[in-house]
Amino acid sequence: MTKHKIFSFPVRIYFQDTDAGGVVYHANYVNFMERARTEWLRTFGYSNMGMMKELGMMFVVRTIKLDYLKPALLDDLLAVTVQIKDIGRSRVTLLQTVSRGEDLLTEGEVHLVCVTADSFKPVSVPDVLRNQWS
Amino acid sequence: MTKHKIFSFPVRIYFQDTDAGGVVYHANYVNFMERARTEWLRTFGYSNMGMMKELGMMFVVRTIKLDYLKPALLDDLLAVTVQIKDIGRSRVTLLQTVSRGEDLLTEGEVHLVCVTADSFKPVSVPDVLRNQWS
Amino acid sequence: MTKHKIFSFPVRIYFQDTDAGGVVYHANYVNFMERARTEWLRTFGYSNMGMMKELGMMFVVRTIKLDYLKPALLDDLLAVTVQIKDIGRSRVTLLQTVSRGEDLLTEGEVHLVCVTADSFKPVSVPDVLRNQWS
Amino acid sequence: MTKHKIFSFPVRIYFQDTDAGGVVYHANYVNFMERARTEWLRTFGYSNMGMMKELGMMFVVRTIKLDYLKPALLDDLLAVTVQIKDIGRSRVTLLQTVSRGEDLLTEGEVHLVCVTADSFKPVSVPDVLRNQWS
Repeated sequence: MTKHKIFSFPVRIYFQDTDAGGVVYHANYVNFMERARTEWLRTFGYSNMGMMKELGMMFVVRTIKLDYLKPALLDDLLAVTVQIKDIGRSRVTLLQTVSRGEDLLTEGEVHLVCVTADSFKPVSVPDVLRNQWS
Repeated sequence: MTKHKIFSFPVRIYFQDTDAGGVVYHANYVNFMERARTEWLRTFGYSNMGMMKELGMMFVVRTIKLDYLKPALLDDLLAVTVQIKDIGRSRVTLLQTVSRGEDLLTEGEVHLVCVTADSFKPVSVPDVLRNQWS
Repeated sequence: MTKHKIFSFPVRIYFQDTDAGGVVYHANYVNFMERARTEWLRTFGYSNMGMMKELGMMFVVRTIKLDYLKPALLDDLLAVTVQIKDIGRSRVTLLQTVSRGEDLLTEGEVHLVCVTADSFKPVSVPDVLRNQWS
Repeated sequence: MTKHKIFSFPVRIYFQDTDAGGVVYHANYVNFMERARTEWLRTFGYSNMGMMKELGMMFVVRTIKLDYLKPALLDDLLAVTVQIKDIGRSRVTLLQTVSRGEDLLTEGEVHLVCVTADSFKPVSVPDVLRNQWS
């Protein structure tokens, strides 16, 4: 599907992540995916603040699409992945999954847009990132 | 697009809903939409617990698709809507929006599946709801 | 105990507020109390942004003490109160409770400090608020 | 103050943990402390589910007291500690701190009560834990 490398980040499930249905509350997968994206960006040399200060930009979520296949449970140790699907001028499309062992629990597609940190105007993905991603 | 009625529910933005970007954190729109769906279901006579106890079922989110158009801000009073797009045997597709006055901020499409409260098996949408929705 | 008026704000419990123990997750009472404080401040003429822009200050939580007496449940409609216990130069101590009907569920005491919005330095509680509170 | 060992657990700060004040939202320290307590209990051989299934009990928070000294920021890597202060029949008092390097940011004291997993009745702290804690 894509030749880009898959980055994986572990997330442990605590009471705070679950709901009275006994499973992980559905909005929390969006949080897990944000944590994984942040750690993935860190592997390319940038924290959130570092990106804002050194590059004057940040990534914002433009669309998100989630497919809930199986529920995650209290105490689970999940793997949350990030993989580039494709890159436009200011847009990056990511595939993200949440799994428990061999079980795929949630699949997501996230469109990020690169914007200026001060006025939220779309700008090109910085070359320092684009070069590492191509 | 659909002839189903639009239900609207007000949501106020507090510090807890925002992030260091100065806007509402993107996962929180998923929470706002859950609040609106719960209040919408209540207008048909069922709380979450009531549905589980009287009908033996609950709705779970199967897919969610969000389009972030403009950011919501601290102190905003938003309107979160729910409207049926279509209904299958055990599946209900909803359109949901988040607006501030005339400004549409976020658009969503949510597929719910009606499942048994004890074993999470898909079941038909109860007639007591289907009749009110047709 | 105190002659100050009690302000009360309704909070509905959704799945997002509960955990796998089947009750409201304990950290969420802190959120409910923040919502009530914000609405209480609004009755004196100030939103969070308004306070920052017009008065150049904000309130931050310095200490919080919570006593969990009984659990809140899914679908509950709670009353969250705010009452001034006493006011110092830059400090305001509040009593806050969370109740379901006659049942007191959680009691809290919250010390707020009035700080400058730009540098977080303690400043006197503005007279425009102090006068309304005495 | 206490001769009990200090357990420390790392917590990274993401956008989801911050608010429009540019710092970590105050309720989230309660979440960080729950994560650390869960990992601390795991070092004694029990996950949350394991404790419920094997011992028929769980710990619930009875009181919590937090002292906010300095704010945590986006991208911070914090250390969250757990240390027993004292143990009663069904009650355990813990000291918890949140630090960034040498900087102590938040101090907490948390009273847990050991309750039956089915009816939330207080029971003695199981010997299998008490013996490891004394």
